[in-house]
Amino acid sequence: MDMQSSLLDRLLAAGLLIDTGIDGLYGRSGTFEDVIARFEKLIDAHAPADARPEVIRFPPGMNRKHFEGSGYMKSFPQLAGTVHSFCGCELDHMNLLQCIAEGGDWTEGQKATDVVLTPAACYPLYPVVAKRGPLPAGGGLFDLQSYCFRHEPSKDPARMQLFRMREFVRMGTPDQVMEFREDWMERGQKLIAAVGLDVELDTANDPFFGRAGKMMGNSQREQKLKFELLIPVTSSANKTACLSFNYHQDHFGTTWGLTTADGETAHTACVGFGLERITLALFARHGLDTADWPADVRKALWG
Amino acid sequence: MDMQSSLLDRLLAAGLLIDTGIDGLYGRSGTFEDVIARFEKLIDAHAPADARPEVIRFPPGMNRKHFEGSGYMKSFPQLAGTVHSFCGCELDHMNLLQCIAEGGDWTEGQKATDVVLTPAACYPLYPVVAKRGPLPAGGGLFDLQSYCFRHEPSKDPARMQLFRMREFVRMGTPDQVMEFREDWMERGQKLIAAVGLDVELDTANDPFFGRAGKMMGNSQREQKLKFELLIPVTSSANKTACLSFNYHQDHFGTTWGLTTADGETAHTACVGFGLERITLALFARHGLDTADWPADVRKALWG
Repeated sequence: MDMQSSLLDRLLAAGLLIDTGIDGLYGRSGTFEDVIARFEKLIDAHAPADARPEVIRFPPGMNRKHFEGSGYMKSFPQLAGTVHSFCGCELDHMNLLQCIAEGGDWTEGQKATDVVLTPAACYPLYPVVAKRGPLPAGGGLFDLQSYCFRHEPSKDPARMQLFRMREFVRMGTPDQVMEFREDWMERGQKLIAAVGLDVELDTANDPFFGRAGKMMGNSQREQKLKFELLIPVTSSANKTACLSFNYHQDHFGTTWGLTTADGETAHTACVGFGLERITLALFARHGLDTADWPADVRKALWG
Repeated sequence: MDMQSSLLDRLLAAGLLIDTGIDGLYGRSGTFEDVIARFEKLIDAHAPADARPEVIRFPPGMNRKHFEGSGYMKSFPQLAGTVHSFCGCELDHMNLLQCIAEGGDWTEGQKATDVVLTPAACYPLYPVVAKRGPLPAGGGLFDLQSYCFRHEPSKDPARMQLFRMREFVRMGTPDQVMEFREDWMERGQKLIAAVGLDVELDTANDPFFGRAGKMMGNSQREQKLKFELLIPVTSSANKTACLSFNYHQDHFGTTWGLTTADGETAHTACVGFGLERITLALFARHGLDTADWPADVRKALWG
C-alpha cells in the first residue's frame, strides 16, 4: 500500500474525511473543520500587527469575463471549471429528462453561465480593486479566503478538486510587494514550526499546460517568481507545497490597469495557504486524534 | 428607486457587498462575514442542548451521479450548475486560445466533469449516509453548511447565485422527523425574534419548473410539506423566505435506500437557514453600521 492511499484510507476510516464517490471531493468532519478554523486564527496571530488588510470573502465562483481576462485558460486550461446551466423550454426539459432516464449524456445541452469556479482565492480581487481607481499611497493589502476548484481528480488527499485557500495579497510598487513577500517567507516558516511540522523553502513553478508551458515554468523558476513551503503530507520524500509566495511582477497590474498612487502600473504579490494541505500535514504528523497531539501544538492551536 | 436596488446600492456603497460585475455574485466584507459567523453561533445556542448532531461540511460541489439520482433536474433544471472542464490536447488548446482572442464562445468545447455545484446544503448528505447502512435506533441528525449555487441572476440581493445555507437534517421514522420539524419551527421563530426581526410563519412551495411544476407546488403546499419563516429584507410587503422547514416524506429514503434500524424506509426533514438573507434582513432593519444596532441585538450576536 503506498503512503498516499494509506493516509486517505486512514482519514476516511477515522471519519475525518467523508467519501462522496469522487476522487478529490470529500466531506469534512467537525474535527477537521475545527483544525482549519484554529489554524486560520494562528495565521492571523502571525500576521504583522501594524498591517491592517482589507478583509474580503468572495464566493467560490467568479465573473467569467474577469476569468477570461486573467489569462488562466492560457496557462492552466486543464484545471479550470466553468459553470453551465439548463436554459431551455418545457419541451427541452422533457427531452433532457428522457436523456437522463436512458443514461445518455444530458450535459451536452448545458450552456455556460457568467460564472467560473474560482481557481485561486485572489483571482476575483484584481479587477475589483482596479475598478476603484489608483491604489492609495501605501499600496493595497487584502485578506482573502475561499473554496477553489481545480479539475485534477486524484487519490492523493493533498490534491483535492475543491479546497480552501487563505491568501494575503499585496499591491503597490515593486519594493512594497517584494518586502511583503520576503516578510511572509519568514513568518510562514515560523507559523509552520509553531505547529510542529518540518518545513523546507524552495523555488517552484506552476503546472503550466503543454510544452510551451514547460518553458514558462522554467522561466518562472529561474526568475524566482514562486517560492513554496514544502511539508511532508503523504510522503517524506515527495513533500507537498502547503504555502506559496508568488511575485506576479506587473502581470495583473497590466492586465487590469491597476496603478499606484503615482500612476505607475502596480506590481502584485500574494502568499497562499493551502488550508486542507496544512491540516492533512498535521494529521499525518501528529496522528488522527487531536487529543493526542503534542502539548505545544495543541496550545498553539487551541490556546 | 425600488427598495430592492436601493438596498443593494446601499450595501455596495457601504462596502458590505462588493460588486463583481455579475448580478447575484458579490464579495462580502469582513463585517458582513462577522455577522454571518455570529449568527451561526446563535443558531448553535438555539439548538436543543441534548441533541448531538454529526457535523459535516461538504465543499460547494457534489458527485454528479448523486445529483442526477436526487431528481433535482426534474424539479429545478433551470437552477442547477454543472461544472465543465477543458479536456483537450495541445492543438485543441491553441484553437481554444484563438477562439477566446477572437471573442468567440470557447465554452462549447468544455466537457462535463463529475462535479455539480451543490444546490442545497443537504443534497450531498443522503447518499453518503445511506451507504453506511441502516440508521441507528434513534435515527440520524446532521449539521451542515455550504455554499450553494442557483442560476437565477437578479438585482435582488436576497437572490444570490452563490450563497450559504446552514442546515440541520433529521432522518428516521415519520414521528421522529415531524417532531424535529415542529421543534425547529418554534426555535427558529425565537432565534429570529432574538435578533429583533419581524417574522411570519407560512406554508410554501418550491419553484418547480414548468406547468407540471405548478401542480407539484400546489400539492406540496396542500400537504404542508414546506413551511417558511418570512422576514422583510428588500420589501415589507413581499417578505423573503429566510428559514425553511421541509418534510421530504420518504423521497430521499426511497431514492437512496436509506432505512431505519427496523428496516423501514427512512423519512427525512431539514431546516435550512439562508445565511446571506438573514444577514441582509439584519442590515435592512437595523442599519448598515453594526455599531448602531440595538443593544439587545448586539448582545445576542456579540455577547
